[in-house]
Amino acid sequence: MTATALYEQILRKQSFLCVGLDSDRRQLPACLSDDAEPLWAFNKAIVDATAAYAVAYKPNTAFYEVAGAAGWQQLEKTVRYIRRQHPDIFIIADAKRGDIGNTSQRYAEAFFDTLDVDAVTLSPYMGRDTIQPFLEYPGKWAVLLALTSNASSTDFETLTVDGGSTVYETVLQKSKEWGTVDNTMYVVGATQAALLAAIRKIVPQHFLLVPGVGAQGGSLEEVACYGMNDRCGLLVNISRDILFADSSGGFAAAAAAKAQEWQEKMALLMGNGESASRLSIQNP
Amino acid sequence: MTATALYEQILRKQSFLCVGLDSDRRQLPACLSDDAEPLWAFNKAIVDATAAYAVAYKPNTAFYEVAGAAGWQQLEKTVRYIRRQHPDIFIIADAKRGDIGNTSQRYAEAFFDTLDVDAVTLSPYMGRDTIQPFLEYPGKWAVLLALTSNASSTDFETLTVDGGSTVYETVLQKSKEWGTVDNTMYVVGATQAALLAAIRKIVPQHFLLVPGVGAQGGSLEEVACYGMNDRCGLLVNISRDILFADSSGGFAAAAAAKAQEWQEKMALLMGNGESASRLSIQNP
Repeated sequence: MTATALYEQILRKQSFLCVGLDSDRRQLPACLSDDAEPLWAFNKAIVDATAAYAVAYKPNTAFYEVAGAAGWQQLEKTVRYIRRQHPDIFIIADAKRGDIGNTSQRYAEAFFDTLDVDAVTLSPYMGRDTIQPFLEYPGKWAVLLALTSNASSTDFETLTVDGGSTVYETVLQKSKEWGTVDNTMYVVGATQAALLAAIRKIVPQHFLLVPGVGAQGGSLEEVACYGMNDRCGLLVNISRDILFADSSGGFAAAAAAKAQEWQEKMALLMGNGESASRLSIQNP
Repeated sequence: MTATALYEQILRKQSFLCVGLDSDRRQLPACLSDDAEPLWAFNKAIVDATAAYAVAYKPNTAFYEVAGAAGWQQLEKTVRYIRRQHPDIFIIADAKRGDIGNTSQRYAEAFFDTLDVDAVTLSPYMGRDTIQPFLEYPGKWAVLLALTSNASSTDFETLTVDGGSTVYETVLQKSKEWGTVDNTMYVVGATQAALLAAIRKIVPQHFLLVPGVGAQGGSLEEVACYGMNDRCGLLVNISRDILFADSSGGFAAAAAAKAQEWQEKMALLMGNGESASRLSIQNP
């Protein structure tokens, strides 16, 4: 998917909502406890309930790997289902992978060919070698960790390196030369919203994947204020607040209501009149 | 497994060889091409052939994920087989995971409970949050990326941060306070052998997992010279040089011969008389 196609979907749905499929088996509704494939059953219901309000889904691999091969199979079923039912929706495997040359190629193949998602999150620690193979798939995306939403992001990400930039700023500066705005995004935590303005100076045109709104306490309004660019440029991820809005048999309806709430907030922040005029914007 | 138990196995086998199960399906011997589970068939033969010479196995998850759920299943079978046949051998999932709190706990559970390996490689980029859950499993290990063997390790790992240390030195300095020598190891590439002496000043007692000897060109002698401590302190990983020593039906015998060659070199570097006396060394 190109950045333009993603932006057009955002305008159409008036939403930049990414639903994080962090389908923690310990938090699933009790009504699914006897299901042979509870992660898949849960995800199917969540996707059916929220697809009208979301432009992206982001399953985090940890919640599938914890169930072993059976979990991986439920992840595969989920991705295939989204692809079939909602071919325009962007799918991000939140895997935070990162390995060297030969091995990194196999990860790219695992996520882009075998699993067939649109994007995968990657850790930049080991440098360009770990990212390059993902950039060689037309229409697919590498989503690099930049400044994350957790407390210990200050351990290494925000250290100052020679020249006065932080580690995460150096990640942005170097890696934006490796790919394009059509195959590279960055993870920036919503809990760091005040820093989004500075980040936008380094990567004005790139899409940012923003976790941390909702359960983690980040503000959607601040993220939009500091992070939005003239083609939206944001995918804001909400997981728990939607997935576990209700633990009864009515969990899917509750998830739909929550997703709609977020979508409506996003539509307001996008500004309707302005957004409609943007539909005519061409690829830069 | 404690560091002492690992060291005792090293002395017993006169080997600090870790066999990297980077079982790339494209490089498997042709005789396995009709096998329904070629990764598992290959791994079983490799383990049977090399277990006498190795103290550790290190499957890299990329080569299993590329085959989807079926690949993950073959990884599980491999780990179960090693556990059953060779309960003293140390198993490292080379997964380079790294995620925050809640999610990181699920990864720890995925690797230590579900898959049941002894250790997992982790990316330190996001800081302590990503490592802590792995340190809370008695007898299990977190293996942190420090200075890797790839060319682009200079992109971020070797940048100088405030105070004059590099990023990877800062990773060592901070993270050694999070765990102990019984639950934390570091990845240091053999292609960086000259830097091992400096690394040993920061982490004199920790085990180092050293890839890059063999196909990547690192020298075993230099690694031993600069990296060995008084309890060996090294696991040197060899993958392709052993796994793909021969592409015929005799691949397992060729792998055994190669593994034995490496073990014999390691025995010489350990020094027999000296090693025997080390058997009496107590846990520091």
